[in-house]
Amino acid sequence: MYSFNNDYSEGAHPLILKQLFSTNEDQSVGYGLDEHTKRAEELIKKKIDCETADVHILVGGTQANLIAVSSFLRPYEAVIGVETAHIAVHETGAIEATGHKVITVPSVDGKMTAELIASVLERHTDEHMVKPKMVYISNTTEVGTHYTKCEIKELYEFCQEHNLYFYIDGARLASALTVEDNTMFLCDYPNYCDAFYIGGTKNGALFGEALVIVNDNLKEGIRYSMKQKGGLLAKGRLLGIQFETLFTDDLYMKIGEWANQMGRRMRVGIRTLGYPFLYDSYSNQLFPIFPNEVIEQLSKEFVFSVDSKVGEDHSCVRLVTSWATKEEEVDRFLIYLSELTNKEI
Amino acid sequence: MYSFNNDYSEGAHPLILKQLFSTNEDQSVGYGLDEHTKRAEELIKKKIDCETADVHILVGGTQANLIAVSSFLRPYEAVIGVETAHIAVHETGAIEATGHKVITVPSVDGKMTAELIASVLERHTDEHMVKPKMVYISNTTEVGTHYTKCEIKELYEFCQEHNLYFYIDGARLASALTVEDNTMFLCDYPNYCDAFYIGGTKNGALFGEALVIVNDNLKEGIRYSMKQKGGLLAKGRLLGIQFETLFTDDLYMKIGEWANQMGRRMRVGIRTLGYPFLYDSYSNQLFPIFPNEVIEQLSKEFVFSVDSKVGEDHSCVRLVTSWATKEEEVDRFLIYLSELTNKEI
Amino acid sequence: MYSFNNDYSEGAHPLILKQLFSTNEDQSVGYGLDEHTKRAEELIKKKIDCETADVHILVGGTQANLIAVSSFLRPYEAVIGVETAHIAVHETGAIEATGHKVITVPSVDGKMTAELIASVLERHTDEHMVKPKMVYISNTTEVGTHYTKCEIKELYEFCQEHNLYFYIDGARLASALTVEDNTMFLCDYPNYCDAFYIGGTKNGALFGEALVIVNDNLKEGIRYSMKQKGGLLAKGRLLGIQFETLFTDDLYMKIGEWANQMGRRMRVGIRTLGYPFLYDSYSNQLFPIFPNEVIEQLSKEFVFSVDSKVGEDHSCVRLVTSWATKEEEVDRFLIYLSELTNKEI
Amino acid sequence: MYSFNNDYSEGAHPLILKQLFSTNEDQSVGYGLDEHTKRAEELIKKKIDCETADVHILVGGTQANLIAVSSFLRPYEAVIGVETAHIAVHETGAIEATGHKVITVPSVDGKMTAELIASVLERHTDEHMVKPKMVYISNTTEVGTHYTKCEIKELYEFCQEHNLYFYIDGARLASALTVEDNTMFLCDYPNYCDAFYIGGTKNGALFGEALVIVNDNLKEGIRYSMKQKGGLLAKGRLLGIQFETLFTDDLYMKIGEWANQMGRRMRVGIRTLGYPFLYDSYSNQLFPIFPNEVIEQLSKEFVFSVDSKVGEDHSCVRLVTSWATKEEEVDRFLIYLSELTNKEI
Repeated sequence: MYSFNNDYSEGAHPLILKQLFSTNEDQSVGYGLDEHTKRAEELIKKKIDCETADVHILVGGTQANLIAVSSFLRPYEAVIGVETAHIAVHETGAIEATGHKVITVPSVDGKMTAELIASVLERHTDEHMVKPKMVYISNTTEVGTHYTKCEIKELYEFCQEHNLYFYIDGARLASALTVEDNTMFLCDYPNYCDAFYIGGTKNGALFGEALVIVNDNLKEGIRYSMKQKGGLLAKGRLLGIQFETLFTDDLYMKIGEWANQMGRRMRVGIRTLGYPFLYDSYSNQLFPIFPNEVIEQLSKEFVFSVDSKVGEDHSCVRLVTSWATKEEEVDRFLIYLSELTNKEI
Repeated sequence: MYSFNNDYSEGAHPLILKQLFSTNEDQSVGYGLDEHTKRAEELIKKKIDCETADVHILVGGTQANLIAVSSFLRPYEAVIGVETAHIAVHETGAIEATGHKVITVPSVDGKMTAELIASVLERHTDEHMVKPKMVYISNTTEVGTHYTKCEIKELYEFCQEHNLYFYIDGARLASALTVEDNTMFLCDYPNYCDAFYIGGTKNGALFGEALVIVNDNLKEGIRYSMKQKGGLLAKGRLLGIQFETLFTDDLYMKIGEWANQMGRRMRVGIRTLGYPFLYDSYSNQLFPIFPNEVIEQLSKEFVFSVDSKVGEDHSCVRLVTSWATKEEEVDRFLIYLSELTNKEI
Repeated sequence: MYSFNNDYSEGAHPLILKQLFSTNEDQSVGYGLDEHTKRAEELIKKKIDCETADVHILVGGTQANLIAVSSFLRPYEAVIGVETAHIAVHETGAIEATGHKVITVPSVDGKMTAELIASVLERHTDEHMVKPKMVYISNTTEVGTHYTKCEIKELYEFCQEHNLYFYIDGARLASALTVEDNTMFLCDYPNYCDAFYIGGTKNGALFGEALVIVNDNLKEGIRYSMKQKGGLLAKGRLLGIQFETLFTDDLYMKIGEWANQMGRRMRVGIRTLGYPFLYDSYSNQLFPIFPNEVIEQLSKEFVFSVDSKVGEDHSCVRLVTSWATKEEEVDRFLIYLSELTNKEI
Repeated sequence: MYSFNNDYSEGAHPLILKQLFSTNEDQSVGYGLDEHTKRAEELIKKKIDCETADVHILVGGTQANLIAVSSFLRPYEAVIGVETAHIAVHETGAIEATGHKVITVPSVDGKMTAELIASVLERHTDEHMVKPKMVYISNTTEVGTHYTKCEIKELYEFCQEHNLYFYIDGARLASALTVEDNTMFLCDYPNYCDAFYIGGTKNGALFGEALVIVNDNLKEGIRYSMKQKGGLLAKGRLLGIQFETLFTDDLYMKIGEWANQMGRRMRVGIRTLGYPFLYDSYSNQLFPIFPNEVIEQLSKEFVFSVDSKVGEDHSCVRLVTSWATKEEEVDRFLIYLSELTNKEI
């Protein structure tokens, strides 16, 4: 059984493991104040071309999101996300557990729009309702789509006009940055949002997400919040070493490229066999629609998840590729699918 | 500069790193449902001789404590700890951030007693005050002392009589389990508490703490709480692999033994040179009292922290040893100290 | 300017004020343990025909809801409500501020259905999502509609089958109980829900809501939660005296009847003049649709709120009647409206 | 049985009740935006001689404290109070339930000192500990003592120097303002603190506490927090009317004066009979020490609470007077005590 279930099925990219190995005996100070973490932060700031940003490396995505939101917002302020947003659905109410409402709006292909935000602002008019104060998006989105620079710019400008913070969840940022027609580069992020995080866990690290805070007003006290929420790792250098490696010799981009390349190979193959997709995604997450019988057969050889039913006889499945995905397994999947397809006929 | 500053200055015990390396390419399911984690849980349950316990491996100590407390207690219930308790002082109000008060009492050598708990119960009589519901201790304590089985039994029985949960923070459990005259073995823990955690971070792991829930009433929903608080690691197997290794061939005990052995070497040496200790500790944490001038000189060669002032001219420092401590560095410290001592004379 | 803006524009029903006056000099114990409160609780338990229920009188509706939800649910459990639910929209995230997610579903005439609940359960399958544990409805609803006994029974049975608590917000319960074709009597409530509250503020009291807990499992510690959330009134007897009065000589029902009677008079009048209603309500809240010009004119003589736009030229307004509504003012409104209507023609 | 148990045993001062009565039929807008509340706010701002202050009237003291603290502080910031502070002991962890730690220090006669605050600042040095950000005192204190202007000024200046907010709980402010040698007048408060509240509940109102925010930085969003925490009363005018009355013709001061006068009569009488006091209080709360047998006898005729044991045979009791205390009952108490005292001899 080979798994296309997600992009965190394997360990770390070998270069990362090598670095952990070679630094293992060194002594360093704890809690992210070590030299590796400092170097990682500097590398990131250079790459995003923003020396004034604050970088804090956290262990996981839910942790990064809950620390960011609860640190940035006042108690009665709320965050707006699309209905499929990770913080709205798949974090077991982590944001609410810090006291903040997540206001959801239907999405367009998993994406937020200025109109959707406007509709929320219109409805929230006084102190009997929460105060919308932050917009959350993911890039790539939870359904594999990605934002253009133009779209992100429009969202950010709308947020600025309406005194809202704009925060981007980059759990799969490597894929977003290297998607075929990408126009939103790493150095653009500080210009078009107040804060974002650069995902490590799903992009080749053992774990780790680098929270980047651009807006000066949001910087204060974040390490207190990190400690309070269980997000300061004693051996913080583990995070530093990983991001140091990811941001050396463009490893982060290479990881995204390979993931997307395998995604493309998979996508083209599936499309060629005549199957439609629920979402028009060009990243490392694909959502093809198969007959339920085909899915049943595929499940005998490959691991993946069923996203949703499509009519009576079909379902949408989610296939995910990563830095670790083997080309031959993609091909084996396509051949197997092709055989199933022919049988059908 | 060699560091005796803490027991998390280095990476992981080499055997752990080796295991991470050799399993790196394997695919596994996420979030702690993989085979390694299951095996680690089984190994732990065998070692503590309690098949009915639930084991959940978390990333860090503050995280383990805040998840345990907030999952075990109702909103108005409070936890009792000594004034030096980690949850009371060094977790940036993590427990309070989940809504619960930490009631503190002065300690006896860093330890809790039944009398101290009784004094809290006496004062908390009705719904205008929080309801004390849980007793928290650390073993070893924050000041390096350890509990005898007799002491822990007394605390547990008192808790049982008074309908209180008894929870043991085992951040430094390896040291507690292998301290010279230890009488409280790993298999005793399930008999004398409702829940405890087996620390990994400070005992040779890269990170990781295994929360063991013995009391059936406290088991429900803990994985929901883990996810909500950012404590479910996507690549959960990293935790599994580490505890699998720690609980194979008694590595966990060996790690504790070496840390204590280095502690003892240090302690005997310091005592021989005529210096007193603030706490009578036999574990891997020592709190000797030195003249401030001596401390200043020591600081030029070794890293450690100053715990507290003792009079005008002296201070208590904290020295910590671990699995990674080098015998020759302990000796170098003692020789250096001896030279400083003679100079003084 | 006469106000139909809400049902809390005036003070208290004169009989309540009289009782506050006549007991003013008496001394009593504080925090709801006084004789008046005990008597009120007994009167309520008699009226609902449920001696085993616990009754706790709170100051306001948001307070009652946040105390109930946060006391009943474990940290990761969520409450389901319709999109117009008071807790979802008009309590400034009070529920979320206690750590719990409010999951919303579109409503059918402001009402919840078993199908809507089922759709939520289907989507929430594991610990990566909150655990739906409670269903919240209001009777009458936020849009003036009311539930039949049949509907409530169906919801309750669905909840029971799926291990969900069923909670009814009775902010406007007097109106619900006395609506023309009502089939859900006060004594039915304990049979068809786990907890509910009997609203005082909008039904003739100065303030006060009587939380009734039927399910034994939800009773523990509620007074601790009340105190913790600022909901224990020092002069608790004020609440007791008011509910004592409301539940003597059926005052509560009389108050509901008058409010509904005025509502009916208003409704019939408006309908006769040919205006449609956005919601088919028979209670003390009406949602007629008027041309914007008519609304503008009405606003010069009467106070009320605009609920929502209906097309370009029309809007839905909310008109509320109460125990204090004067018949002549209803008539004046209708005459005035009739004149505006004729002018239009 | 006559009660000296507290200052909230009776209803409201007759003038307040009269006003509630005479305004009962008026219609007004809800939630504290009515004319009465505005007038009350103006009257208070005039009395404290601070036009720029914001005034918000809340229902109860615990509510006022939890709203103030949670609105003023960031998530990791803590409030410092003495061990006997109401927020530390008698609010069921209300502050912690909003996520904030209450750091306690031993008191001097129930009072805070700059030295005590300094000791906390010294211990809280980095992000592993909460950040002390607010100092809480009560005037009069929980043990009946009061602060001089000099003491309050010193505390405020210390707070200013150390970037701490200074907040005064005025649950018994009327008594503090009218204590014999008082030097801290109402108009001084805005000059020497960032926020304070003027207690109504214990000073003749049915309920109500007027939160006064002086520091501009603390004003934002407070009405959102009030609503979120259940602190916006629908019939907000009830609060307005009461404070309007309290601040007309110096009723508030008269109420304090009578309470203190009765306290003094009681104090002088008890002292004359030779009994000592645990705290040297000149306000409406007295803490005399009686032999346990005397207490037993007194309990047959009067209601009061036992504060604490003093040795084997004696206890300290708390006696509280108020606007409603009857002079003849004070005298009856003293005569009865005198008889018990003679019997003893």
